Amino acid sequence: MDITAIAKNFTEFYYSQFALGRLNLAPLYRPHSMLTWEGKQFQGGANIVQHLNELPFEKVAHKISTFDAQPSSLDMSTLLISVTGLLRVDGDQELQFSQVFVLAKEGESFYVLNDMFRLNLG
Amino acid sequence: MDITAIAKNFTEFYYSQFALGRLNLAPLYRPHSMLTWEGKQFQGGANIVQHLNELPFEKVAHKISTFDAQPSSLDMSTLLISVTGLLRVDGDQELQFSQVFVLAKEGESFYVLNDMFRLNLG
Repeated sequence: MDITAIAKNFTEFYYSQFALGRLNLAPLYRPHSMLTWEGKQFQGGANIVQHLNELPFEKVAHKISTFDAQPSSLDMSTLLISVTGLLRVDGDQELQFSQVFVLAKEGESFYVLNDMFRLNLG
Repeated sequence: MDITAIAKNFTEFYYSQFALGRLNLAPLYRPHSMLTWEGKQFQGGANIVQHLNELPFEKVAHKISTFDAQPSSLDMSTLLISVTGLLRVDGDQELQFSQVFVLAKEGESFYVLNDMFRLNLG
């Protein structure tokens, strides 16, 4: 299993869909999936995507600076990804962010088990 | 299980020991534990702590800005922690960092299964 390739494909897909339409992200989550967004907690795909969709901006672009991936269980059933980067919403100035995902295996693909997002405001 | 309390205790312990003497961190890791430090990968407590100890600074202080915690397995056997903050080495200017840990349960305590560190240089 090429963990780095999976992580790269996932992050590219996630941020491209985030820009195209945040509701597109719903299939990535399951009922027990968790999001912590700037300290606020949400559980389940419907709640998670509703929150993302209600964020008060129209346009958003993420630029990935670094991403790291590691297997996170002895049987390779989960995968930890850490992303740092810059994002720009509605033409404002760029902001640094950190986002962490744990992907869990389901058949031949993965879903998002854990998702944590923080702006790095210093 | 109070996940937030465990995460808070862990991060306070980790950064205090990091400052006191990085070799003190060895008992936190197991032979299969992984560290990705600024993109470089290390496995096993001995290799991880050797790398941390060889980092070219004498004094270091971390200031935690945010930390988030979530259970990362259905049986609560692993715990995901994301930290953002500022660190200062040898009196230089403060730098933003992101660090991610997965703690794994072992009896009544936890060890570090995954560890990822990045400076956020923008």
